[in-house]
Amino acid sequence: MEEQKKKKILCVGLVCLDIINVVDKYPEEDTDSRCLSQRWQRGGNASNSCTVLSLLGAPSAFMGSLSAGPVADFILEDFQKFHIDVSLVSEHAQCVLPASVVVSNISTGSRTILHMNRNLPDVTAEEFSKVDLRQFKWIHLEGRNAEDQVKMIQQVEMFNGALPRQQRITVSVEIEKTRESLYQLFPHGDVVFVSKDVARHFGFLSAEAALKGLYSRVKQGAVLVCAWAERGADALGPDGSVVHSDAFPPEALADTLGAGDTFNSAVIYTLSNGGSLQDALTFGCRVAGRKCGFHGYDGIADIFG
Amino acid sequence: MEEQKKKKILCVGLVCLDIINVVDKYPEEDTDSRCLSQRWQRGGNASNSCTVLSLLGAPSAFMGSLSAGPVADFILEDFQKFHIDVSLVSEHAQCVLPASVVVSNISTGSRTILHMNRNLPDVTAEEFSKVDLRQFKWIHLEGRNAEDQVKMIQQVEMFNGALPRQQRITVSVEIEKTRESLYQLFPHGDVVFVSKDVARHFGFLSAEAALKGLYSRVKQGAVLVCAWAERGADALGPDGSVVHSDAFPPEALADTLGAGDTFNSAVIYTLSNGGSLQDALTFGCRVAGRKCGFHGYDGIADIFG
Repeated sequence: MEEQKKKKILCVGLVCLDIINVVDKYPEEDTDSRCLSQRWQRGGNASNSCTVLSLLGAPSAFMGSLSAGPVADFILEDFQKFHIDVSLVSEHAQCVLPASVVVSNISTGSRTILHMNRNLPDVTAEEFSKVDLRQFKWIHLEGRNAEDQVKMIQQVEMFNGALPRQQRITVSVEIEKTRESLYQLFPHGDVVFVSKDVARHFGFLSAEAALKGLYSRVKQGAVLVCAWAERGADALGPDGSVVHSDAFPPEALADTLGAGDTFNSAVIYTLSNGGSLQDALTFGCRVAGRKCGFHGYDGIADIFG
Repeated sequence: MEEQKKKKILCVGLVCLDIINVVDKYPEEDTDSRCLSQRWQRGGNASNSCTVLSLLGAPSAFMGSLSAGPVADFILEDFQKFHIDVSLVSEHAQCVLPASVVVSNISTGSRTILHMNRNLPDVTAEEFSKVDLRQFKWIHLEGRNAEDQVKMIQQVEMFNGALPRQQRITVSVEIEKTRESLYQLFPHGDVVFVSKDVARHFGFLSAEAALKGLYSRVKQGAVLVCAWAERGADALGPDGSVVHSDAFPPEALADTLGAGDTFNSAVIYTLSNGGSLQDALTFGCRVAGRKCGFHGYDGIADIFG
């Protein structure tokens, strides 16, 4: 059991660079203006989740692809700053400098995002098959190339099959984007995070309704989790009762970027340490709420450190 | 004379990173959109001028300050790609990742620029005093910290004083921004580039009017040059006659970013090789016009190579 505790949490998915430009007025087309400040931030859901896990004190690893060049250098350095294991990161030479531009308007709180097509391959099932799974206690997949990701989860199940229950790897998946192909991930995680966006896409108007409506899609014994911004988050496990936590909004909203990833990580952190679903949900809402009160993630370490 | 030809052209001023995001619709506030393409480009007037000089075949050097970190690495690598001497570049640790964000709308041709305060010191007269001036035949200053820049020019004049005419360094200055302090540079260059913006700020409605109105400000024997976008460029030298070149617009406009720097460089290139003012002006308009027909600067080498 002690040995299991020392194992890492692996997050598989995207890492990218966010260039965040803080303005007090959204720039009109064809003008020159000056931003109040600018910061570069490692982004991407799986990458953010690693950051938060690390700040909460859980050893984490990231698996995903990265371009070569100065952006990669910045990103790798930042991973290392947070003691995140990057030994499973693969570097690719194409598309050397991708960045998402975020214009953050402090007067209105709006965030305008200009995404760049990264043009980088997702982790394949073949690459994943070479990973030594013994080092992990939990694997979290950000839903992307779902067909391959289903195969990865089957590999984990095969690995688990040969082990006693307490040494098995728990698998969580995040279904965030309203993309048909991602829905095949529902029956494949022990914990499934479904976004408000996806829930609404299915026609549900609350987290509770979404959980009840979508629970039939998850595998037996799985937990389905749905966060709903300022209305908190709900979860439904095999016992059939919906668990709820209210949101914990900060005194002043500073930065909501990555709040969802923060929630997921805090839930995974609690569950991976044997906490209850209610504890996990409440902790998730609390950490995510606090995170919205400051820029970036560094402050998380101070709250619960 | 042969030895003078081998000497470099030094450009003193700004280098920065431009992240250029090409879109087909200017992003509305608080939305997520995807850009068609993104490119990173070394920018800044003096830095661009070095690029163009280098592509035209003139050895050039850049003097200015740079932050430390991945942006600096990208910029230094790009300088080297163009064989620009960076031995006079000073690195500073503060403000490690400054970039200007450019949203380039291909549907309308508009360019929206979000500048980042670089927070980096300009080259001081004290730093400049340590430069071995013997390696240069021409020094071009992008008007910025004008008080110090006047002192730098006085240092060059002192250096020139001890030399025969044909070994002297020619000094050019660029007065681009409508900033009162920059106007003290008028009487200090052998060649003074004044922008359309500044000319209009003084109330002039054409390049010719600006030259006639502002010529009294330049020193005896100096040349005053004023480009006026699609109306070409004019110049006025000590003989009192205004020289003109029409613009050479490209078949299709692709990228006007840095067109002014391209013009200045092509003029400096011609004059530094002993060309006439008329030749310089025509060549300036031709190279700048062609440059607007493609993205970036690389294509310049192909036109006149």
